[in-house]
Amino acid sequence: MSSSEPQEPSAPSSEPPSSDQSISKKAAKKEAMKQEKLRRRQETAIASATSKLAVDEDDPLAGNYGDIPMEELQSKTPVDPSRWTRVENLEKSLEGKHVMIRGRAQAIRPVGKKMAFLVVRESGFTVQCLVQAQQDLVSVQMVKYAAALSRESVIDVEGLVSVPSEPIKGATQQVEVQVRKLYCVSRALPTLPINLEDAARSEAEIEKALQAGEQLVRVNQDTRLNFRVLDLRTPANQGIFSIQSQVENAFRQFLLSEGFRQIHTPKLIAGSSEGGAAVFRLDYKGHPACLAQSPQLHKQMAICADFGRVFEIGPVFRAEDSFTHRHLCEFTGLDVEMEIKKHYFEVMDIVDRLFVSIFDSLNQNCKKDLEAVAHQYPFEPLKYLRQTLRLTYEEGVQMLKDAGVEIEPFGDLNTEAERKLGQLVLEKYGTEFYILYRYPLAVRPFYTMPCYDNPQYSNSFDVFIRGEEIISGAQRVHNAEMLEKRAESCGIDVKTISTYIDSFRYGAPTHGGFGVGLERVVMLFCGLNNIRKASLYPRDPLRIAP
Amino acid sequence: MSSSEPQEPSAPSSEPPSSDQSISKKAAKKEAMKQEKLRRRQETAIASATSKLAVDEDDPLAGNYGDIPMEELQSKTPVDPSRWTRVENLEKSLEGKHVMIRGRAQAIRPVGKKMAFLVVRESGFTVQCLVQAQQDLVSVQMVKYAAALSRESVIDVEGLVSVPSEPIKGATQQVEVQVRKLYCVSRALPTLPINLEDAARSEAEIEKALQAGEQLVRVNQDTRLNFRVLDLRTPANQGIFSIQSQVENAFRQFLLSEGFRQIHTPKLIAGSSEGGAAVFRLDYKGHPACLAQSPQLHKQMAICADFGRVFEIGPVFRAEDSFTHRHLCEFTGLDVEMEIKKHYFEVMDIVDRLFVSIFDSLNQNCKKDLEAVAHQYPFEPLKYLRQTLRLTYEEGVQMLKDAGVEIEPFGDLNTEAERKLGQLVLEKYGTEFYILYRYPLAVRPFYTMPCYDNPQYSNSFDVFIRGEEIISGAQRVHNAEMLEKRAESCGIDVKTISTYIDSFRYGAPTHGGFGVGLERVVMLFCGLNNIRKASLYPRDPLRIAP
Repeated sequence: MSSSEPQEPSAPSSEPPSSDQSISKKAAKKEAMKQEKLRRRQETAIASATSKLAVDEDDPLAGNYGDIPMEELQSKTPVDPSRWTRVENLEKSLEGKHVMIRGRAQAIRPVGKKMAFLVVRESGFTVQCLVQAQQDLVSVQMVKYAAALSRESVIDVEGLVSVPSEPIKGATQQVEVQVRKLYCVSRALPTLPINLEDAARSEAEIEKALQAGEQLVRVNQDTRLNFRVLDLRTPANQGIFSIQSQVENAFRQFLLSEGFRQIHTPKLIAGSSEGGAAVFRLDYKGHPACLAQSPQLHKQMAICADFGRVFEIGPVFRAEDSFTHRHLCEFTGLDVEMEIKKHYFEVMDIVDRLFVSIFDSLNQNCKKDLEAVAHQYPFEPLKYLRQTLRLTYEEGVQMLKDAGVEIEPFGDLNTEAERKLGQLVLEKYGTEFYILYRYPLAVRPFYTMPCYDNPQYSNSFDVFIRGEEIISGAQRVHNAEMLEKRAESCGIDVKTISTYIDSFRYGAPTHGGFGVGLERVVMLFCGLNNIRKASLYPRDPLRIAP
Repeated sequence: MSSSEPQEPSAPSSEPPSSDQSISKKAAKKEAMKQEKLRRRQETAIASATSKLAVDEDDPLAGNYGDIPMEELQSKTPVDPSRWTRVENLEKSLEGKHVMIRGRAQAIRPVGKKMAFLVVRESGFTVQCLVQAQQDLVSVQMVKYAAALSRESVIDVEGLVSVPSEPIKGATQQVEVQVRKLYCVSRALPTLPINLEDAARSEAEIEKALQAGEQLVRVNQDTRLNFRVLDLRTPANQGIFSIQSQVENAFRQFLLSEGFRQIHTPKLIAGSSEGGAAVFRLDYKGHPACLAQSPQLHKQMAICADFGRVFEIGPVFRAEDSFTHRHLCEFTGLDVEMEIKKHYFEVMDIVDRLFVSIFDSLNQNCKKDLEAVAHQYPFEPLKYLRQTLRLTYEEGVQMLKDAGVEIEPFGDLNTEAERKLGQLVLEKYGTEFYILYRYPLAVRPFYTMPCYDNPQYSNSFDVFIRGEEIISGAQRVHNAEMLEKRAESCGIDVKTISTYIDSFRYGAPTHGGFGVGLERVVMLFCGLNNIRKASLYPRDPLRIAP
């Protein structure tokens, strides 16, 4: 289809694929200047084109098409929005009915001077529309107007629903709209920095074409992020963020049904947060402050304040210079904290049931979204058990040892060891989701409760999907004196966290909790290769825009 | 009851009430030092008391009471948490049954040497427990142990449920527990910086006592916030944050059912956000950055990215020096953005139905919480109509004029005028919730769409509860050139928001949206006098702790 369309291939998207870190500031600047130049050229072109495209005054059917005047788009006349039919609802049962739809002109294909096909897209659904010159109904000027629309423009289409005898390949809906009226709400630049068709292409398609001798455009990750507003329109991206919304929703619904309350803790923190990871610092009305690297201290304080069971969904900030496929400087934390009666297994029980319910709900409610993602980024459905596998850290280390990987017994697992263990677990237990518990104390934060029988271990756990960590959790120290000692031995200035420690002097329930990264859950459930794909507008050490 | 308890009246809570701004840094420091001293003294006292209170080895019933050793609290033995009965479930049907409960020792009242009453609190529910010496069951040493517990300590109580002939006044549950076993999980300091009883007292009680010649302790707002972990344990505060959780939940459920998707936009923004309000600035890996003062630009970009209908719940940051009862430097924003077909009334329709559904859900699902709040902070239920009243700004100005209040026709309403108009609307229309629309363009942000018929007005609205603004909304400019002009005429450097403006060059749907402050909704629904009461750990120009 692309060959018959009027657009030239877009410039920046034809760059070779680059690693995530390759875009230098200089390149970004150059890129921006190039875009700016292109834009100016295009605006001049539009101005001249629009005047050329102005509705033909001599056409008696001129009222049936054209650009909607600005005034009309400024809330001049209230209408019932239900007069528009959603593209996803265009079904065969509507045959012969007159409908009005609003969407984007995804593709425009003129056939001679008397006919033009439009593919109109709304919320990821597409329908083919036919503008065909017909006496007293559709003028050739209207066909010309349709053919000259720029792709991605927002348009209103009115027409009759028909059912073609042949299946329609280029659209999701199996009906066609015989266009009677066509109005443009908002014109897109004739040449876009990314073509949607290019952005939606899978690696497999590119490879296949290459073998047939055709070089298709590959849009690299940085170009996508630079023009995120266009990139996000692809079916895969629409799917990813519907899945994200569903993960969050399933997380919340499960916890609310278990008696948890949603809270909001401050992101602006005096001093230096909980120590450890690098923090973003700022001046708060003359006081040194920083951005919370997690709601850890405040969610524990909510437990001391009789909240019983709490969760929070909110941004967390990490100033670390991590240039990996799975680290961001700002991400959405899903945090849980709860009283326990006797054992941190009570927390692990919640993790187990919570995540099985999230995975089930994705498989049940997001079928179309998962298919849209898999179409561009193929992946196998996640393998998980009805009751989540639990292994001790020692058992994990032993499994690695048996496989020839030596691990420092009181050190941490590195990314490579985690991945290897994930493989071994999958082979032995048939699951890609499992809990590893009883970690060495030395590799956990100061507020982690040591094991009763061996202080070199701790009442803590990590949870893995496809060999990558997504959750960290533990029982917390609820005794002020013990907490103070643990903080000191971890080199933390206890004066900076005195309000937190004092909270445990007023009677503190035994408690535990965990934290999850929303983007990681989405990335790993869908087997994506980069966490930036699961963040709407990602922030990493090199990127703070758009 | 307080007279028979061993605690001395707490020191800081007996300060006279002060305005929100009165606590100086010096005073806060002095206060902190005083607390630190008190704490040290108490810890010494506890250490000596605990050894004195150590279980009597000669008591053959010594196994039935005592402090649980730390080791036992370090996840030594997994148990089924359902073995504990929740205090709220202690009902007459359980008469004669053996139960185990965990909660706080809210009150301890020894009666001679052979009897002690405990009031145990869990999640705002309380039950009276009787420890009475009985041959072979309860020793006098156990009664002594119970009597010497410090208030707010976390305890496990085992015993038999009985139903007294007289109604119980000092507890929510109408049964009594005949204690057989009593263990302490976590001891509170014997003297707390705030007594819960004082913190839970209403102004009316204080006044009434004063008339009877008794001076009761009044805990001022700053002291409450300094010791927020204790303050939050009061029934009113537990109610406030259950209500907050419910507002958020009703907000989300309504929008999800209307096809909105939840998104997360970055809080770390390059440059200076959208201009206007003061922002918190920081260094982002060598680049000047700031904290988002709203998700405005990014949520609009999500609309340009085909998200159709989105909402976000997240922190927003304002560095303004506003020392009022209704401003915070960090609060939770509820933000909505949606495509519109023709008119911003489509957005107002959502606001209307959304808020009526939130108010209905609070009245239906939070009865006990609302009562708990009203008990300490009396308020009248919010008056609202099934279909929300809509007035134009001009009509509002005229109503004020008729009442003798002159308003600059193209200026904004100040707080006083808003409150006055609220009164007039209540008198005339019988509602405390209404929409005022078609504001002067000059008082709205640059991205607001001007009216088609008069560019001095805009397609915008504010929404009021009890005479105070809680929502601002509008149709947005969706045309890049118009947007650029509007930004320039508002004195904004368009270069700093070029990615945002460029988003509208790729085809932009007509759209609108609004933003709500979660804390304000809770404050005004409950008629609270200070927004700090509706924020878990409030942040204002003078406060960044706890």
